[in-house]
This record gives sequence, structure tokens and C-alpha cells, in this order.
Amino acid sequence: MLKGFTVPRSPLGTAALTPPPPWHYAGDVLAVEFWNEPDVSADILPRGVRLDTLCWGRSVAIFADCQFTANGDEYLDPARYQCREFIVLLDATWQGSRIAWCPYAYADNDAAILRGWIQGYPTKFGVVHQTRTFAAASPASAPLANASRFSGCVSAHGQLLAEARVILRERADHLVGLLDRPIVARRYFPRLCAGMHDIPAVDELVRCSIDKFLISNLWIGEGELTFPEAQGEELDMLGPIKVGRGFRFSFSCSFTDCTILADLSAERMICRPKKGR
Amino acid sequence: MLKGFTVPRSPLGTAALTPPPPWHYAGDVLAVEFWNEPDVSADILPRGVRLDTLCWGRSVAIFADCQFTANGDEYLDPARYQCREFIVLLDATWQGSRIAWCPYAYADNDAAILRGWIQGYPTKFGVVHQTRTFAAASPASAPLANASRFSGCVSAHGQLLAEARVILRERADHLVGLLDRPIVARRYFPRLCAGMHDIPAVDELVRCSIDKFLISNLWIGEGELTFPEAQGEELDMLGPIKVGRGFRFSFSCSFTDCTILADLSAERMICRPKKGR
Amino acid sequence: MLKGFTVPRSPLGTAALTPPPPWHYAGDVLAVEFWNEPDVSADILPRGVRLDTLCWGRSVAIFADCQFTANGDEYLDPARYQCREFIVLLDATWQGSRIAWCPYAYADNDAAILRGWIQGYPTKFGVVHQTRTFAAASPASAPLANASRFSGCVSAHGQLLAEARVILRERADHLVGLLDRPIVARRYFPRLCAGMHDIPAVDELVRCSIDKFLISNLWIGEGELTFPEAQGEELDMLGPIKVGRGFRFSFSCSFTDCTILADLSAERMICRPKKGR
Amino acid sequence: MLKGFTVPRSPLGTAALTPPPPWHYAGDVLAVEFWNEPDVSADILPRGVRLDTLCWGRSVAIFADCQFTANGDEYLDPARYQCREFIVLLDATWQGSRIAWCPYAYADNDAAILRGWIQGYPTKFGVVHQTRTFAAASPASAPLANASRFSGCVSAHGQLLAEARVILRERADHLVGLLDRPIVARRYFPRLCAGMHDIPAVDELVRCSIDKFLISNLWIGEGELTFPEAQGEELDMLGPIKVGRGFRFSFSCSFTDCTILADLSAERMICRPKKGR
Repeated sequence: MLKGFTVPRSPLGTAALTPPPPWHYAGDVLAVEFWNEPDVSADILPRGVRLDTLCWGRSVAIFADCQFTANGDEYLDPARYQCREFIVLLDATWQGSRIAWCPYAYADNDAAILRGWIQGYPTKFGVVHQTRTFAAASPASAPLANASRFSGCVSAHGQLLAEARVILRERADHLVGLLDRPIVARRYFPRLCAGMHDIPAVDELVRCSIDKFLISNLWIGEGELTFPEAQGEELDMLGPIKVGRGFRFSFSCSFTDCTILADLSAERMICRPKKGR
Repeated sequence: MLKGFTVPRSPLGTAALTPPPPWHYAGDVLAVEFWNEPDVSADILPRGVRLDTLCWGRSVAIFADCQFTANGDEYLDPARYQCREFIVLLDATWQGSRIAWCPYAYADNDAAILRGWIQGYPTKFGVVHQTRTFAAASPASAPLANASRFSGCVSAHGQLLAEARVILRERADHLVGLLDRPIVARRYFPRLCAGMHDIPAVDELVRCSIDKFLISNLWIGEGELTFPEAQGEELDMLGPIKVGRGFRFSFSCSFTDCTILADLSAERMICRPKKGR
Repeated sequence: MLKGFTVPRSPLGTAALTPPPPWHYAGDVLAVEFWNEPDVSADILPRGVRLDTLCWGRSVAIFADCQFTANGDEYLDPARYQCREFIVLLDATWQGSRIAWCPYAYADNDAAILRGWIQGYPTKFGVVHQTRTFAAASPASAPLANASRFSGCVSAHGQLLAEARVILRERADHLVGLLDRPIVARRYFPRLCAGMHDIPAVDELVRCSIDKFLISNLWIGEGELTFPEAQGEELDMLGPIKVGRGFRFSFSCSFTDCTILADLSAERMICRPKKGR
Repeated sequence: MLKGFTVPRSPLGTAALTPPPPWHYAGDVLAVEFWNEPDVSADILPRGVRLDTLCWGRSVAIFADCQFTANGDEYLDPARYQCREFIVLLDATWQGSRIAWCPYAYADNDAAILRGWIQGYPTKFGVVHQTRTFAAASPASAPLANASRFSGCVSAHGQLLAEARVILRERADHLVGLLDRPIVARRYFPRLCAGMHDIPAVDELVRCSIDKFLISNLWIGEGELTFPEAQGEELDMLGPIKVGRGFRFSFSCSFTDCTILADLSAERMICRPKKGR
């Protein structure tokens, strides 16, 4: 009788942290491409995922101001369903196919954090900001024009984790080298019973299907990016050794399904006697 | 040797909560006009300010997502200089001239709160949200189009203070009945010495000069508005007895100067023997 | 090579949201017992859990200010590991044994939310406060003494969800009727693949072992409690139809293991053909 | 007819950000003494205040978890009237008398920020945490005992501003070298009219009377303290060149009156022709 896609499951199903897909997003993105030290970043990949040898160490850092809705007009509850997110994507391969791998993600909203986990993003709470552009011209609004500057930043628990700056140079029609490969993520939910802490209850590599991905007002320019050291975080180990282009655009997309690429939990269970359950 | 327009004054002047004017703002606004009970709202006006008899009890509730800058590229520090604000304006008169009076204001940022006080807005901390529109079409983005819906809300210390809904109906070129009268505010800073608590150190009625006020993408439609009762707040006493049009637009403006209309403190000091100091 | 009990798994294992058990908690609690309408609350129980017929509809609302540590001196990182929580527990039975069931939980910290989910608490983000007592006497400190008053409140996304008041009456040595039954919770992690949204990947009833549960400075008195209606929440459906005693105490406990009482997911899978995976 | 000690002034006077004195505080404090570079810190003092030549450059950094009340049972509204504060005090002199001077202050609550300004503290918004001790023993609770460790931290707008660590060594009865001199502060409220930005409307050196100052559970030990560099802040310029003792105690005090030591604004007005107004 209990309803709801997630906890808390309840009589009416309206208390659940997030409704089920389809999940629709619209937002503004500030992004910077960078190169990490491949010897370090190779250590952040799960079994079967490899760095892309054609673009060794290439990554992108993405700041997104998002509005979410499912089928229930959630966008009309902005206190609950707007979110600001920061994610890092590494150029990688899975069984020879080009993919993007997400080692770190932050969002400022509990529903966004949970949607992240369900999709396989390792989302933690972070406070994310980016410079905005507005329809009315002003010194206070960054225009979409050559030489216009935008900043992005993310912090968690009072520590700065990343800062970016983008200087726009030219308008573009197509996003090349950013969000142009499928994202592979890892749905992971630990076991809690003693002795089972390293045998997760869920450990799946998944590829999420992104539908209706639209890009508007795309501008490309120069990027700057730093990852300050922070206690309890390892993002700085991916610290840019080189920074490339910067991007600024609006986007929308929908999400309705995912494909399980591998059940890492099952593989592990085979090698080890199953306890409990 | 200490520098800074506000506290904290410091050797370099960069620690001050806000730089001096010019202050430039760009933002998106959701607004709803409403009528309060004039017998109640008349009690919220300071000496010399009267309800406008031509539009008895008419008011507007304004939700604004703002980006701020002064002369130092503050818009590139979005964690510090973006703010979301909620203000109420009552149609009033001062010495026979039509003005707007601000009894209550909320902002989510310390610099915005302080700029409010310096300009005479009685700003408190509030968490403010409004539905956004984005350049890429999506079920998650409210379009600027007939029948599109937007929500706004403000809360303080975990209590909901106001909720609004606007359904867009038609595009318009001119903002009539909203932000079309000078705003009069009250710069107020209390004395702390015992016996002087009701004789403020600063008590000035001021009219702020708004320069370069631009409106873009103005849409007008139907509004809904409620002010739930909340402990430690009196906004609900202005609770709408009738709700009118709703508005959604982008704006920008600058602020460089203000005119002191009356020094209420000086008037009071004349009537009362000065103590202490 | 990746380390960490939870996501994000990382080379050093320090980025994970929470370290593995043992989990130690110390804190202050304000609690109020109340009775809900059994016809309503029966609908909030999962299969196999029943209302306790010996105390039909009895429940407690608990506000906790907590400090957390595992084996890594986490209590020395208070920005990350202090948390304030609010949970509701219903008197229930599982296979004839007296248990407490948690339908709703809120915490102000991402690590606490995740520990909640892993233990089976349906934790959402909430802002929780309670009146404190301090060692130095003052009108600003609520003493631990007859007639002293304490308040608690929780809000989420700007809406007030619960308010409590306790008036202390007498010191007590033993906590009877509160936290004296094992808590049964439901570890739940959804599947994301289309068509599988109602077949969770993890759906286990678990009983967490609480070790070294200590109570100090226990006072018992009269309670008051309200659950205001809030959009997107169903807590108010448990709205007290009667309110009983109030409690105020300090506690500590440790958590090292849990027992899986039932795998509801497996039961469901038997009745339904397995898709995908 | 409008009531209220501060804005917003309102018909009932309950909307004001803070009630008038008496102001009562109770709280827990973590503090570290340190020495700054006198050549730098001398620049942070207003006219007439000098570094104390008997303890050249000595300062304290104070983290306080506070509960506030005035005459209206404000402590029963913990969401609004609890606050966490961080302040720095420099050993200084005023007309030959030993005083403490506050160059920087942070608080996490709008009412606390405004009370700060009214008292002359240059308070900005900051997120402040400190390790707590609880009545029930636990690895998660820092005991009041030799070798026990406590941490404190403050951040603003996602940047870490100060971190402290105290290791307790011995219980003490009297607080010597901390909060044992009157605090002198600067009430400051700017003018807004063009051309008047450097002639504040209020600029007073004041000495606040602290009544009924109680200290409980005082422990003294070794301190550690760092002030990381942060954009838009100058606290790091006071960066410790030496760190001394650490302190941990509970306190309470009341505040009812202040003495104006000097009206710096009036002095300045004499030297300069008055414009406008």
C-alpha cells in the first residue's frame, strides 16, 4: 500500500525524495576542459573502465544551474527542485567504446543528491555558484559576447573545492569535446552487516540514456580552473596540469532509462563465499 | 588609514561587506499586485507617509533573482554577490507625491542585507526562490509564453512567509503599476545607550535615485499570492484581500545617489530633552 | 584499488561520504510522545510490520543534536560531522516482537543522510533546532530543573514540519517508553531501468544493533507537539491526536552491525518475472 | 505608532530583527591566543586606539556557540535566536587604558549580525562550528579532561577563514588573558548620498558594559590556529606569527548599556565642510 519511487515511502507517495523518471532538466552550464595526470587519474577508475588513450588525461569540470521536473509540475516548487551541481567527467573507454566517467559530483539539494546516486553519480552536498547572464543589459550582467567573463565555484562544508573562469570568444553551433560521449556511472549501495562492508548490495556500472539533449546559446573561449586542497576530499589530486577551452551554454535533456553494463557486485560475490542474506 | 565604505574597515578596504555606489543590479523578477486592508496597512507607515487614496491599499510583492556589481567586477564572485530578494511595496504618498513604501524586505546574502539597510530597506535574512526560464526548451523550463506558469516563495528561519503563482497571458512593452513610482525608504540605526532605545542615531526618510532602469521580456498575466502566518513576522497582516495581475520580467538598474526627504530623528530630538552622549 | 565504504570511492578512501562502522554518536535529545490515528498510521507500515496493539498509535518525535565519530577522529571536523536530526518512531511489532518503526527522518548533513539510508532510515534534508542548556547559568540558558522549558523545530525547504515544547518536571533514572525497543528500518535502493521502478534493487527490513547506549541527565515532563501541513510531505497525517510526556536527556551510543530480518525485494521477485539485469 | 527597536518597525513590534536590551547570552567557547605582526595590526586600529605595548601583537580568536534571549523568551525560538560566532580581539589601549579591540567578527544569523553592528562589531555572515562535549561519555564526545581535543572553524561564502585546535591540559578557575579587558568597538553606519560616502552618519567608539559575566568548566591547554588566505577578506593579514594557549569554557553574560567614548563622525565633520542634507 506504501507508495513512492524512493524513501520515504508513504501512503500518498508525495513524501518520496524524488518522483520516478522521466526526469527533465533545463539549465545553464559553465564548463572548463582540463588535463589531469594520467598516472593519478587511472587510479580513480573502476575495473573495466580505462583512460582514453586518444586523449590521455582529458577531463571537463561542469558547473550547472538546473531546474528539474518530472511529471508532477515539480518546476513549480523551486525551493525543492532547483539545484546547482558540479561534476567532473574524465574521457575514458569501456570495452573499447568512448565514454565519460564521473569520479566526483556535488549538488546543493537532497533530491538532486539522491537522483545522483540512483543514476550512479557519487554526489555529495556542495554549494555551487556561477556568474549569470540576464536579458536586460547591465554592468552586473555578463553578456553573451566576445570577451565576456564568467566565474564558477563550488565549496563543501566551508572549504573551497574548485574555481573556474571562462572568457567567451566565439559563438558555436556544436558542442565538440564536451558531453558528446555517453556517461558511465556506478550505482553503489553498501551492505551494513559486519564483515560485509566491502561487498556492496548494489554495484553496477550503468549507462544512462539521455534523451532530447538540446544546447542553446553556446559560446566557447578560454578556461581557467583550480582545485584547492581540501580536508576530506580528493578532487585536488585531479588538479589540472593543463587547462583548455571554456564553455558556456544553456541546455535541456530528459532521462528515462539506463542500461546495466556490468554487475560488479555479482562478479565479486563469485570470488568470495556469500555470508548472511 | 582604515578603508572601506562599510564595516569591517580594514587596511586594504577589501574586507568591507559592500563596496560604495555605484551599485549595479541585473535580475529576473516575479511580481504580483495585491490589495491589503487599508485600516491595517495605514499603521505600517511612518509619520508623513500616507496610503495613496487613488489606489487605496494597492501593493506589490516582488521576488527577484539578482546579480550585483560595483566597480570591482563583483559579478565574478557569484558566491558573494548573487542574491535573491523579496520585497513588498505599498502605493503611498509623501507630501502629495505618489511614492512606493517598503515595509518588509528579505534577502539571502549578508552584503544584500547591508545594502538594504543603508538604502533604508528593512531587510532580514530570507530564503527566496522563483521558477526560472532557460534558453533551451524543456518540460523543466517555464517558457515565456501564454499560459506558462511561474512560482515564487520566501521563507525565513524555516517558516514560509509568502507564496506566489503567476500565469503569463501576454507580452507587454511597458510596466504600468509596478516600479513606476519612486521608492521611499527609512534609513534607521538605533542608539544603544540605556534610555535612548527609542531615539535612533539615524532615522531618515530617503528617496533613492534609480538610474538606467531597463525592463526586458515583460509578460503580464494573472497572479496568486498568500502570506501564511509566521511567528516573529507581521507580513501576514498585509495578507491579500484581493489579488490582481502577475508580472514576469528581466531588469537592470543602477544606484548612485539618494535624497534625504526628512530627518525624523532630528524632529524627535527637538521634542525631547537629549540624554547622555 | 578504489577505496571507501560509500561513494565517492577514491584512491585514498578519504572522499567517501562516511567511513564504515563502528559509528559512535553523542548528543542531546528533546522528545515528545504522542498518539496518532491508528487507521492512518497502519498505512505507513511495510508488509509484516504491525501497529502494537498494546499501545495503539503510540509514537515519539525526537529532536537530536549529535556529534559523530568513526575510527578517524571525525568529531574533530565539526563542520562535516556534527548533525541535527529529527525522527519519528511508531510503536509496532515484527513477528510478535515489540519494535519501533521509523516512517520519517530528517537531518541537516549529507553524511548523516547517507548513514540514515544505509541503516534504513528514510532521511531527507531538514533544518533542526532545539533549545540548549549551558553550564553557566543565565536567562539565555534553559536549566535542567523543574519548570524549565525547551523548544524543538524542524523545517525542510522553507516549510515548518514540526514544533515541540517540553516543560521539565522531574529527574528520572530510566527511559521507559522511549528508545526501549529495537528500531526496525528498511534499507531501500531503487532500480532505475525502465519498467523496474517498483522493484527496488535493495529492499530489506533490518534491525540495527545499538551498543553502549548511555543516557545522562534525563528529565521528564509535559510535552506539546504539532505537525503543520506542508507541501511534498506527509508527516502531518500522523498529526498528534493526543500528546503525552516530554523528555530531555543526553545520550551516547555506538553502532556496529545490523541483522537483516527480511529481504522484501527477494519476496517480490519471486512473484514477478525478472526483467533485464 | 510603529514599534520595534530595529527595522523592520511594525504595528506590533514583533517583526523587528532584534528586541532591545537587556540581551542575555549563554554559550560554549573555544579560544586560542596568538600574536600577530604588530606592524600590520597597528594599521587595523581606528584613530585613538593603540596596540598594547605591554603585550605587543597579542590577540585571541574566539569561537562561540551561543543562545540568546531578551525579555521575551527568545531562547524558546532556537531557529531564530541561537547563533554561532567567531570574533578576533586585539590587546590594545584607549587613552592609556587596557582594552580589547575587535577588527573582525562573523555570525551565522541575521539577528546576531545586527546586534553586532549596533554594538560596534563589524559582523559579517559566517558559518562557525566547534567540537562539542556531551554529558554522556562516548568516543564521539570530547570530554573535559587532560589531553582532550577540540576543533573550531569558520568559513564565509564557501571559503575557510580560520581553523583552530585546542588540547586541554588543566582545569582553571580564572580566565586570565582572555575577556579580562573591556571591549571597545565602533558603531558605524555609512551615509549614502553622493559625495558623503566617507563621512559616516554614525561613527562612535563605544565600550559595552558586560554584566554578570560567568565562566564555568574552564580548561586551559595548547592552541593551534591558522588563517587561510581568502578572497574578499583580510583576516589572514593577522595570521599568527606565534600561537599560545588554548581555552575551552562555558559562559554567560548580559548586556544592558554602552558608553560612547568618542564620536569620530563629529570630529571629522569639524574638519570638513558639510555637504547636502
